[in-house]
Amino acid sequence: MLAERYKKMLSQESMIRQIFMYGKKRGAEIGYENVFDYSLGNPSVPCPPAFTAAMQKLLAEKEPVALHGYCPNQGDPDFRRAVAESCARRFGLAYEAKHIFPTTGAAGALAHALRAVVTPGQKVLTFAPYFSEYGPYVAGLDAVLEIVPADTETFQPNFDKLEQMLDETVAAVLINTPNNPSGVAYSCASMQRLGDILRAKSAAFGHEIFLISDEPYREIRYAGAEHPYPAAYYDNTLTCYSFSKSMSLPGERIGYVAVNPKAEGADILVDMMAQISRGTGHNCPPSLIQQAVAQCIDCTSDLSVYETNMNLLYNKLVELGFTVVKPGGTFYIFPKCLESDSMAFCEKAKEFDLLLVPGDGFGVPGYFRMAYCIDTEKVQRSLAALEKLAAAYQK
Amino acid sequence: MLAERYKKMLSQESMIRQIFMYGKKRGAEIGYENVFDYSLGNPSVPCPPAFTAAMQKLLAEKEPVALHGYCPNQGDPDFRRAVAESCARRFGLAYEAKHIFPTTGAAGALAHALRAVVTPGQKVLTFAPYFSEYGPYVAGLDAVLEIVPADTETFQPNFDKLEQMLDETVAAVLINTPNNPSGVAYSCASMQRLGDILRAKSAAFGHEIFLISDEPYREIRYAGAEHPYPAAYYDNTLTCYSFSKSMSLPGERIGYVAVNPKAEGADILVDMMAQISRGTGHNCPPSLIQQAVAQCIDCTSDLSVYETNMNLLYNKLVELGFTVVKPGGTFYIFPKCLESDSMAFCEKAKEFDLLLVPGDGFGVPGYFRMAYCIDTEKVQRSLAALEKLAAAYQK
Repeated sequence: MLAERYKKMLSQESMIRQIFMYGKKRGAEIGYENVFDYSLGNPSVPCPPAFTAAMQKLLAEKEPVALHGYCPNQGDPDFRRAVAESCARRFGLAYEAKHIFPTTGAAGALAHALRAVVTPGQKVLTFAPYFSEYGPYVAGLDAVLEIVPADTETFQPNFDKLEQMLDETVAAVLINTPNNPSGVAYSCASMQRLGDILRAKSAAFGHEIFLISDEPYREIRYAGAEHPYPAAYYDNTLTCYSFSKSMSLPGERIGYVAVNPKAEGADILVDMMAQISRGTGHNCPPSLIQQAVAQCIDCTSDLSVYETNMNLLYNKLVELGFTVVKPGGTFYIFPKCLESDSMAFCEKAKEFDLLLVPGDGFGVPGYFRMAYCIDTEKVQRSLAALEKLAAAYQK
Repeated sequence: MLAERYKKMLSQESMIRQIFMYGKKRGAEIGYENVFDYSLGNPSVPCPPAFTAAMQKLLAEKEPVALHGYCPNQGDPDFRRAVAESCARRFGLAYEAKHIFPTTGAAGALAHALRAVVTPGQKVLTFAPYFSEYGPYVAGLDAVLEIVPADTETFQPNFDKLEQMLDETVAAVLINTPNNPSGVAYSCASMQRLGDILRAKSAAFGHEIFLISDEPYREIRYAGAEHPYPAAYYDNTLTCYSFSKSMSLPGERIGYVAVNPKAEGADILVDMMAQISRGTGHNCPPSLIQQAVAQCIDCTSDLSVYETNMNLLYNKLVELGFTVVKPGGTFYIFPKCLESDSMAFCEKAKEFDLLLVPGDGFGVPGYFRMAYCIDTEKVQRSLAALEKLAAAYQK
């Protein structure tokens, strides 16, 4: 018999995917260069040449049985050491290799971090706007995701609501900074306050509440915003990272969980995740990719195009009278629609071949997301379309 | 709070791992070349040169954003097409790309196949001897694994016991042929009888029972044994495959589930697995590896060494009076110990620097596994140690 649970999920086709497929169809009609497709968060710049060079060298020089062999359940030792050294140096926490669990991207990292500290039936809180895949991630372990409503003035965490919602059944708080979809980086003051609240509530409830910090956009950071490292503000933090965006390797499935050395269970959490892995079918991320990334751990793609694109869009949106918070990183921006129904607004935008994603799926109806990981030249051409869209609402 | 479920698993250290670690320690004392380490099932021959060439060509020639980009939720279209065409041609079933779900090796394949057709609380049956990781795989989705006792005469499935145990709560039967640890390939007659039983029981219970066929050793097949393709004998079969052994790529995490085109739900099972993937953190296997394997889909490593090693060991074991079934494939052999306590027998073997794995963990106490994926020269040198071990029991 087919499992009803997953069969039912088939009818819920992703909104982003629908828009992306529309873009492909429209592109076939008018040329894809004329479709201003802001739907998908797929990096648009090549991986660092150092990554390609490391891969080629490994393939040319390393003995294939060792190169492609099983790695230990806890991951490739060189990769773990490289990540620990880099994070320790950059963020000032005493990470050692034993605190690093290599994963198949951020999805793998979140699957394991969540299972390690959340049991079925417990609650996980996250702040709107939030990445819509958090729903299935948390449902996958039969826990309950609850959404703290957005502070739409700043898109910083809404702490008043958090304090109301944080009860004894909450096992973890899940954050994403810089944030998909808002582009906002949580400030130092936000991280301090979040740490204070979690410490106070953990003490009050008599158990540690974990902070799970999803940071795939960590390296895409813009001038004018603060970029605190969340784990530095709260000991019980599991940092989930992916090289998908910083090295433009989303298809290669490489990331990690970094356990704060001061967290409860810091010495056993990685071993626990290796056990969890036996039930999820995860095992390690690809051995070759771990080895190559270890050799260029601090490299990134040339990420400057995203800030260029952001400034073009932000300035134009402000000029056109949109309500919009300036992003501090990522390759997203999340303005308010010009009508209350964001689905209708995004349909209207299609008339100008602008593909926007309604905010509903991110927990904030009335807003829309633009993923500007596209060529700057196309962003520039799209500005006229944005003007026409705004004009359509001034009639 | 740490999840107790996984914390408890930490104390259950793998027997195979303990033996392997002992081998490392002993190797440091007497030279690893003098330790006859038959503990680990790690391929000992290099990957096909065509795989390395395909990787190098992709890295040199394909545009990096496309090469390393996200692939669709259902996997790389070229890989899916290549697998479908290869399986259709070789096994005579009408596979199309839509029936193929790329996975991170056999572990990923089993995780998704099991979740697609087994719901929590239902039973999965497998035949002893069985791969010990089936326990955590099935526990990972909160289902129950029950072991059909071994037919130690032949290590073919024990059908009388199967018929007794197959009740209405059984959602799937999980087989592994050629088998780890016995090395035995299930015969055509066995597959025919298994299909007949599953069809009869499905009809009696009014729901389809799925066959999940784990085939990572499919390409390591020896003369003198039959090698039927299980899905050809039963429509409701999900075939789980890995290139880990056939291409010696265990670290690169590449495999697939092939849904029999005549299975219940054949047109939606892959889409269901893509949904399951959202909760397990699996997503697709590495994009680059999918593309490279697609280009050399029918290549294998030079697998002949395993049959050479098997014959050396089998002949010596028979000569020494061991009770042993001749393997039909894999790189394992599973003889009966010379005393009833297999743990004690394997301890005794250590005195001769022979590292053997007790059969207890595979569901058949009193037997032991040898993984002979090592150099033939070392197998030859180990025969004298086997002689000494046998002699120790003749005193």
